[in-house]
Amino acid sequence: MYAALQDPVKPLLSDTMNDKKPARATIAAVAARAGVSPSAVSHVFNGRPNVSAATAARIRSAADELHWRPNYASRKVSGRGGRSLGLVVTRSGDTFERDPFFMRLIAGLTEPLAAIGWSLSLTLVRDTDEERVYREWWSEQRVDAFLLVDVRDDDPRILQVRELGAPAVLLGAPVDDLVPAVTVHDDAAYEEVLEHLAALGHRAISRVSDSPGLVHSRERDRRFVEAAERRGMTPTVLHWEPSAEDPVADVLRRSGAATALLVDSEAMAAEIIAHAPELGVRVPEQLSVIAWEDSWVSTLVRPRITALDAPVEESARTAVKLLEQLVNGERAVSQTVSARRLIVRESTARVPAPAPDPDREG
Amino acid sequence: MYAALQDPVKPLLSDTMNDKKPARATIAAVAARAGVSPSAVSHVFNGRPNVSAATAARIRSAADELHWRPNYASRKVSGRGGRSLGLVVTRSGDTFERDPFFMRLIAGLTEPLAAIGWSLSLTLVRDTDEERVYREWWSEQRVDAFLLVDVRDDDPRILQVRELGAPAVLLGAPVDDLVPAVTVHDDAAYEEVLEHLAALGHRAISRVSDSPGLVHSRERDRRFVEAAERRGMTPTVLHWEPSAEDPVADVLRRSGAATALLVDSEAMAAEIIAHAPELGVRVPEQLSVIAWEDSWVSTLVRPRITALDAPVEESARTAVKLLEQLVNGERAVSQTVSARRLIVRESTARVPAPAPDPDREG
Repeated sequence: MYAALQDPVKPLLSDTMNDKKPARATIAAVAARAGVSPSAVSHVFNGRPNVSAATAARIRSAADELHWRPNYASRKVSGRGGRSLGLVVTRSGDTFERDPFFMRLIAGLTEPLAAIGWSLSLTLVRDTDEERVYREWWSEQRVDAFLLVDVRDDDPRILQVRELGAPAVLLGAPVDDLVPAVTVHDDAAYEEVLEHLAALGHRAISRVSDSPGLVHSRERDRRFVEAAERRGMTPTVLHWEPSAEDPVADVLRRSGAATALLVDSEAMAAEIIAHAPELGVRVPEQLSVIAWEDSWVSTLVRPRITALDAPVEESARTAVKLLEQLVNGERAVSQTVSARRLIVRESTARVPAPAPDPDREG
Repeated sequence: MYAALQDPVKPLLSDTMNDKKPARATIAAVAARAGVSPSAVSHVFNGRPNVSAATAARIRSAADELHWRPNYASRKVSGRGGRSLGLVVTRSGDTFERDPFFMRLIAGLTEPLAAIGWSLSLTLVRDTDEERVYREWWSEQRVDAFLLVDVRDDDPRILQVRELGAPAVLLGAPVDDLVPAVTVHDDAAYEEVLEHLAALGHRAISRVSDSPGLVHSRERDRRFVEAAERRGMTPTVLHWEPSAEDPVADVLRRSGAATALLVDSEAMAAEIIAHAPELGVRVPEQLSVIAWEDSWVSTLVRPRITALDAPVEESARTAVKLLEQLVNGERAVSQTVSARRLIVRESTARVPAPAPDPDREG
């Protein structure tokens, strides 16, 4: 009799729709269905290479059909004494360094991880190395779970962590039931930003996006346009071109008639605010600028940046809680954290010469 | 016969003075001298608690007398597949977040670590937890080496890594032969800064220090004063008081007659530059400001900050090379990396009304 049968394995479902406790599958049932031994099932879900691709596919199908997932709690933990969370950031050092979000995230992860005896394993990778690093970190048992950030359209990591059987949580909108998400709902933030700008008389507004390939960025484009159009405003979306000779001049040229910019990153907003006057555009007198994220940097520049503060520390705490649940074999369901909130500082002001309003009567 | 005798253990000396290959000691010789078994020696140097304090002290003395250190190469590595470098930062999330140095350091460590198959284990700790975290990370084999930053006067970590037998490298001035240091020599930087300020007519200069307890900060105080006095300038040193109601106003008040400030951190320099005009002091017209470190932040504020760029990426690469040598049982000697270099931007200018020069004749 297999040891695994004496220790029934809980299925792991992060299904927010279904609060009923699902029926339990066992590793033996998966093995029987796939016509293999339970250790073959275990090998596949531990990322070990000694099972053929065809057999691995059969095992995954059987596991899917039975809604079975490995019991992470029984997996040997990293090192001898504790678990580790893997944070693999697919960015160059340069774009990592310029994003205070990561400093807030790292600082925010530290305390909740320490409280449960976990450490944080961090690396930056090129996108060509991404798949390999996740696989190696998991199969070499360097880490016991992953936190996915900068999730892209059709992100291969979602499939990969599922295939590895690695517990993972993502920051962003949910994309898969097996990878619980920690989401900041932004609908209220759009309304708050547009309300603020409308009250100052702005009607033509450009969103300046940094990473057109990222899911969260595309989602923001869409929601921004919808929310602005609902208010009868004129929204445009343009992408920051870091390779342009003068990215700020490029943005100012392409933003055309817009009197306000909603800028994805603080670094970009700070660059626009600092450089625009040198190009003959005063902020906020001639152009209002809002940053979609906030950190200490927003108060360093003059005018201070009106910005949307995200609950990064709350997101980090929530992600750690979900990871702990996954690793302990409990159900983990996607969570929504506090909304982003607008902090009005000095980079937004009344529109200089209000655009004529064709709807106005009399 | 002990297995250890078949695999002689190289002593590990990071003695920059002595290039002769030192005679080899063995773990058996240490055990014999201390009157214990080799496994007791091994236990002490792996941080395991099952040896009495008195015995551990005897073993350490014996090891010291024979200049013996454990052969890290034979130690079981973290996890199953690879080694990990521990970076334990004794800072609050807030002071960590505001220091772009750490972003540069993390980004700079990533590539050389990945090249040798290591990962980075990172955490922030309160000073009361520091000793415990180093001990746990080492004894639980979460990490295979430590990188020490923010080294303080009489830093207990120097003794601790020695007692644990943990390979460690520090960033800063060397303090101990057993912990090789990666040092940025700053003598030329003081001369460069003072030369630049002297050419602009400045004579009274204040250094604004952030962390009076850190070795590197004290060292900078001393060298700055010496270098300025050698030039017949009037140096003063004052400490940034983050708890002051208005730290910038506090610095401006205490800097008295100084016409130029040399500020330890970029965050402080940026705050002074942004806030001073609101207190009636224009930078650089009335006050020149130089930051002792540099990152993207220096170009975001207006005026752009004249700053000293440290070779952070080179330091990171060098530290990883030394750690690899230590872990492989090779000799690792302290290294000096490129000098800090002055990047003149816009926050320094000619002194407004030169102080009368009592030495001037005619």
